[in-house]
Amino acid sequence: MRIDAVDFFYLSMPEVTLEGDGSQDALLVRVASGGHVGWSECEASPLTSIAAAVCPRSHGACQPVLDSVLGQTLDDIADIPRIARLVGRNSLDLLQADHTWSGIEIALWDLLGRRLSEPVYRLLGWPKAFPKLPYASLLFGDTPEITLAKGRAMRARSFRAAKFGWGPFGQSTAAADRDQLAAAREGLGPDGILLVDAGAIWVDDLQAARQRLGALQEFRAHWLEEPFVSGALDAHHALSRESRSVPLAAGEGSHNPFMARHLIDHGGVGFIQIDTGRIGGLGPAKEIADYAVARGVTFVNHTFTSHLALAASLQPFAGLKDHEICEFPAEPKALAFEITSDHLMPGGDGLVRLADVPGLGMTVDPRTIERYLVDVEIRAKGEILYRTPRVPA
Amino acid sequence: MRIDAVDFFYLSMPEVTLEGDGSQDALLVRVASGGHVGWSECEASPLTSIAAAVCPRSHGACQPVLDSVLGQTLDDIADIPRIARLVGRNSLDLLQADHTWSGIEIALWDLLGRRLSEPVYRLLGWPKAFPKLPYASLLFGDTPEITLAKGRAMRARSFRAAKFGWGPFGQSTAAADRDQLAAAREGLGPDGILLVDAGAIWVDDLQAARQRLGALQEFRAHWLEEPFVSGALDAHHALSRESRSVPLAAGEGSHNPFMARHLIDHGGVGFIQIDTGRIGGLGPAKEIADYAVARGVTFVNHTFTSHLALAASLQPFAGLKDHEICEFPAEPKALAFEITSDHLMPGGDGLVRLADVPGLGMTVDPRTIERYLVDVEIRAKGEILYRTPRVPA
Repeated sequence: MRIDAVDFFYLSMPEVTLEGDGSQDALLVRVASGGHVGWSECEASPLTSIAAAVCPRSHGACQPVLDSVLGQTLDDIADIPRIARLVGRNSLDLLQADHTWSGIEIALWDLLGRRLSEPVYRLLGWPKAFPKLPYASLLFGDTPEITLAKGRAMRARSFRAAKFGWGPFGQSTAAADRDQLAAAREGLGPDGILLVDAGAIWVDDLQAARQRLGALQEFRAHWLEEPFVSGALDAHHALSRESRSVPLAAGEGSHNPFMARHLIDHGGVGFIQIDTGRIGGLGPAKEIADYAVARGVTFVNHTFTSHLALAASLQPFAGLKDHEICEFPAEPKALAFEITSDHLMPGGDGLVRLADVPGLGMTVDPRTIERYLVDVEIRAKGEILYRTPRVPA
Repeated sequence: MRIDAVDFFYLSMPEVTLEGDGSQDALLVRVASGGHVGWSECEASPLTSIAAAVCPRSHGACQPVLDSVLGQTLDDIADIPRIARLVGRNSLDLLQADHTWSGIEIALWDLLGRRLSEPVYRLLGWPKAFPKLPYASLLFGDTPEITLAKGRAMRARSFRAAKFGWGPFGQSTAAADRDQLAAAREGLGPDGILLVDAGAIWVDDLQAARQRLGALQEFRAHWLEEPFVSGALDAHHALSRESRSVPLAAGEGSHNPFMARHLIDHGGVGFIQIDTGRIGGLGPAKEIADYAVARGVTFVNHTFTSHLALAASLQPFAGLKDHEICEFPAEPKALAFEITSDHLMPGGDGLVRLADVPGLGMTVDPRTIERYLVDVEIRAKGEILYRTPRVPA
């Protein structure tokens, strides 16, 4: 069967703030082939990712993503990496293509899972899906008091783990960061798993990161995430040698599997965090899960948006019993939460489970699309290259 | 003074083919500040790079590039890396931002050079600009006969060096590639410097690259360029250990300085090729030139488009006498050649020289913009985010 259509739906909250909260907008992708459909979500900058899908070609190795996707055969799972190689070749010089393709790739797995009546994790090679221990993913409060209250709230919601990140952390003094860490630990209680996300704030400044290690150890952080930008392998490596009791976590910025491997091989990370909506989709993410196992590194999903993205991000390491912790968007904006009518909520034991259902197992709610849909039109060379599609019934 | 305006002009040939010829379209950038203007060219996918400049923001770390540029102070050269850090932070999750920002960054240097009456290379720290030995950058012919004729034509134009790349090379058998290399060597003559560009065709397939080493040695290739995609550090490194008489060249895909450093430190390349229109502009490119010197690696520009791009790409290593070879677009499309009214043509001694003139020293021809300008309009959220600007007088 051929891939008949790829549609993009750009959703946005009425107001998008400067918070480090990636759930304020979303780019949904729907693919159609032979009477079946698949859904997924791209990560980051909807308009730019749409442009990469539909732009006029610049030359043979800078073609719009859809030119390598529409009309392609989709008979079995081997077609997905084949199309991925095509996109990689034909859009080699189109930087944003990796983000655009990631969403399409995931939707193709969803579609095939539905057509074959198999959950995606099984198509990826995992016989079963193990339960995951969700950590509530939160922004630091503007003050330690707010952070304390957030920690307490998560404890009240029975989260055994929580991650605090971004907000003011790392931007002022090490003493101010210590106060934030103290508040987070107090809010979470002595037994909670505390994770800390610096949001790449120190770029590649080893000394700035070093100044926080004492407090991270004092308040028993389980990991320090993204002290640096993802390319700063040397800084990651140097810090990892000094912070053994607080392993480093990184990888969400990886827009191809090489970048994630480099963080493992040359950056010394203990946790590799993969956003399936950026790295090229589920195939590359599974490749990194296997690679992490071989190198003694723990795979973790990166997910800050919808439960559609969450369902996708859990597939690549569903079969890894010991890679137990998973990111869980605990305070998403309404838009992100409402994208699906079903949700992967923690069970009575506090664990999150992927059900044994076809595809990603999530149902997109057309009323949410209707409610948050952004009207877009892109014209070039006398043609309409993109116009917001109608909401599917 | 403040940055008052940043305008993008998307130019295109009437027909854009599937050739690996990046000179078929162009994205020009003009910046204005305090009555001065600066010009430059972005590399790759004009529409997508425009979208990254003007898209609605997604969150604090996924903002459109222009939000970090317009209104910023531009008093001296230290302002440029300051704005670069701002873009890096505010557009951390916007993949295409690196390509968009690269063009703006270069235009800011051009503007400051004009305002301060200094050539950009001097602002970058080079007391003088040494002449460079241009290599004619060409696509392999569809047949060895065409390649032979191209080689002869370059010799007739007095080029002492030529690079053949892309086209059929690497896509069929090693024997077919040997025929192409034989033809290139014959066309260029025994004394010509022959460079070979595989255009990342083998992705990360070490064995496929290995099969070509014999012929590359036989016909005395000066380097083998991009056997693999830029992230495939392990494959580059392994090949570099087997191909010592034919050093590897790579780096054009680097969209930040880290990627170029990794090719030097972990990929074993002998030549690091930087496209200033992708890596973040002239500041990061100069950083890599310095890094290359310290590691015993030779810096080379990557330029396949206009002489505006060529003038920019020569600045970062203008002061390096021993890094003598430079890429020279020998068969650009009319659009690319006509962007500037002046050109950096080789002198009687076959060498290319940057003149001691303010800025990049190039004059953009408004008639060329007029002739090739693409009409674009991007609307979202009820607003026109971008519309092709008027051609400047």
